[in-house]
Amino acid sequence: MTFREDGAEALEWAARYLERVGELPVLAQVQPGEIRARLPASPPETGEPFSAVLRDLEDVLLPGITHWQHPRFFGYFGVTASEPGILAELLAATLNSVAIMWRAAPASSELEEHVLDWLAQLLGLPAGLHGHIEDTASTSTTAALMAAREATGRRVVVFSDQAHSSVAKAVKLLGMVPREVPSDAEFRMRTDALELDDAAAVVATVGTTSSTSVDPVPAIADAAERAGAWLHVDAAYAGAAWVCPELRWSQAGVERADSVVVNAHKWLLTPMDCSCLWTRRPADLRNAFSLIPEYLRSRDEVDNLSEYGPALGRRFRSLKLWAVIRCYGREGLQAVIREHMRLAELFEGWVRAEPGWELCAPRPFSVVCFRREGSDEENEALLERVNASGEAFLIHTKLNGRFVLRLAVGNAWTTEDDVRRAWDVLRREAASLQTA
Amino acid sequence: MTFREDGAEALEWAARYLERVGELPVLAQVQPGEIRARLPASPPETGEPFSAVLRDLEDVLLPGITHWQHPRFFGYFGVTASEPGILAELLAATLNSVAIMWRAAPASSELEEHVLDWLAQLLGLPAGLHGHIEDTASTSTTAALMAAREATGRRVVVFSDQAHSSVAKAVKLLGMVPREVPSDAEFRMRTDALELDDAAAVVATVGTTSSTSVDPVPAIADAAERAGAWLHVDAAYAGAAWVCPELRWSQAGVERADSVVVNAHKWLLTPMDCSCLWTRRPADLRNAFSLIPEYLRSRDEVDNLSEYGPALGRRFRSLKLWAVIRCYGREGLQAVIREHMRLAELFEGWVRAEPGWELCAPRPFSVVCFRREGSDEENEALLERVNASGEAFLIHTKLNGRFVLRLAVGNAWTTEDDVRRAWDVLRREAASLQTA
Repeated sequence: MTFREDGAEALEWAARYLERVGELPVLAQVQPGEIRARLPASPPETGEPFSAVLRDLEDVLLPGITHWQHPRFFGYFGVTASEPGILAELLAATLNSVAIMWRAAPASSELEEHVLDWLAQLLGLPAGLHGHIEDTASTSTTAALMAAREATGRRVVVFSDQAHSSVAKAVKLLGMVPREVPSDAEFRMRTDALELDDAAAVVATVGTTSSTSVDPVPAIADAAERAGAWLHVDAAYAGAAWVCPELRWSQAGVERADSVVVNAHKWLLTPMDCSCLWTRRPADLRNAFSLIPEYLRSRDEVDNLSEYGPALGRRFRSLKLWAVIRCYGREGLQAVIREHMRLAELFEGWVRAEPGWELCAPRPFSVVCFRREGSDEENEALLERVNASGEAFLIHTKLNGRFVLRLAVGNAWTTEDDVRRAWDVLRREAASLQTA
Repeated sequence: MTFREDGAEALEWAARYLERVGELPVLAQVQPGEIRARLPASPPETGEPFSAVLRDLEDVLLPGITHWQHPRFFGYFGVTASEPGILAELLAATLNSVAIMWRAAPASSELEEHVLDWLAQLLGLPAGLHGHIEDTASTSTTAALMAAREATGRRVVVFSDQAHSSVAKAVKLLGMVPREVPSDAEFRMRTDALELDDAAAVVATVGTTSSTSVDPVPAIADAAERAGAWLHVDAAYAGAAWVCPELRWSQAGVERADSVVVNAHKWLLTPMDCSCLWTRRPADLRNAFSLIPEYLRSRDEVDNLSEYGPALGRRFRSLKLWAVIRCYGREGLQAVIREHMRLAELFEGWVRAEPGWELCAPRPFSVVCFRREGSDEENEALLERVNASGEAFLIHTKLNGRFVLRLAVGNAWTTEDDVRRAWDVLRREAASLQTA
């Protein structure tokens, strides 16, 4: 085998995949265990050609893939691994640069800081923040809360009942104490009784996972400042919207945050994984995480990004973010976000206008929460039918105790026709349920 | 731009890189800040072609890259991103499958469990272990210690003074209490006074980072069993050696571990990141990490791998490990490990035979610890000169308080000529230091 020939075959598979993904069922139509059962019980004794791997990817694995790249993937948060991002991952794997410390990977270390500065500029964040990349927001939030724990000597972490599950998971990991506060009728953290005097940190969310609601960050920042608590802003999904000035209303107060996380792998066209964490208190992160054994000491007078987070080994993740920002530019990123806002608004309008359907939450970004009139069970059955069709994929959430459907626009290849088709499938399956 | 054309250009760059990496200086010959200074202060307003990214990778970034793929990279642990692994990363990025839960990525979830089972077979680990992939051993060890903390209700973690820094980092993260125990003359954990009665966990290392020493796992397992402490085995580097039956002496006692980590991205030809964690107590990991919010609930009666570790979002990492195992097979993996053992033994023999040089530790695997007779300062100066030559890259460690050089063989393209050249450079620079 040669790298060029195998590579050309892999590249052709990838190109064909991106061309045809829209014709595949969005949600994998397999039962648990079905894929595993098709794999040999034991590894091969001798090597096989790479083409055999590609063949089995096509024949064995493909039916078990839920297609996040599908233009009618409306689940969780819609995401895109754009072409420049994909090819940059090929290059990162080729270089296999491991940024355990600066001298082990100077270009990776410096590009990471630089591109995070670029992205801060694009998003209109304050100048001078320290930025680095973690794998996911789970890790970014863990890093921020660890810094808060060490800096304050306190253990209580405050967040709303709409905060992402990764916050509670990080709190448990860190041996900290969760304190959940209620949200208001529009799913925003209530601040009327917010008490942070004993808190290490408060986590405000811009774009909650259920309904993309925006916590009142300015009021939360006031309370955090009074109490000396760390303010961490989880903008994992919605922070990308700040690339558009008209959506920066949702950034109010974020300039006062001690740390903020935005996942470039969500709404910024970058393949998994690329979670961007900025802080105005880098010394506190460094104090929490720095730990340099002898075999990593060098004479370089320089910070190592591994001193700002849990992991020592770090991939060359900045390469893909750099490629995406350069190949799209500010205008290209804005165009994608604006088109997704337009599509979500369209869908919202169709739901509003259709008898028998209702909207269930305000829609600040590209996620629409809605339901069909009727019971939770009927809505759940509807969702299962839509997803079983393979024509579109949505998930549900619960808002005010009710089962709610949730359409998340976020794939760069999604067109108006795709959103229309999802709406058609929803109405078709609802009608067929009614007559069944 | 089209994906096929840009992709062909990226692939050609990658192929050329792999062909010429041996001619580049191993350690980046740049000063801190030098790469950043060459990058534009602001991101572009409009998109650029991907070819511009490739051009700047070549012109701007390449001088700042320390080449982990270089056949004379002998630093840290030598690693290889093999061709099948690289191409599988291209495919993983193309699919952008995010395994937050089974139904979001059935093939990724099932292939991950399956390939970890394959690898357990290849390494001769006990049947029936639960395996999953984390990014790095930092995270794998954190996951294991978290499970230990929750299962035992205790907080003390015991490890030797030769344990990897990630253990102390994980202990701090988890709010646990470190207890370092001394090692013996051959850098193995001393067990004569090992007391684990109040310990949540003990971390034994097979292949320590400084000298690749092997802790006496059977005795440690005895003590852990008596005390009801969790036994975690860190075999991040050396676990790969178990693919060769003649090296399984170092696996004694590991069959009694509660968890064991082996990094496929170290000595198993897989690009960063791919840390394999097995446990015989999956319920304890799940109990520590499971936390399912409403928007992730589904009717599937199935485990989600995100319930076994800190992160929710998970890349399709198993694809590259699958590709590597299939394209090399058991025999191919064995051949690489055996060749590296042979090369390290050769180098060890040269040092032993050469007046004025000494070996500083036993050599159980492919890392040779040695020094030139003389002061620490002289050895440090020697190391700096060797690394500044760009001809080979090594790091140092401290053993018994002395500055020791460390040659780690682990790159699949390293030949006998490369090891010989490193030895020549070392002697040349030592001689030139002496006459200076």
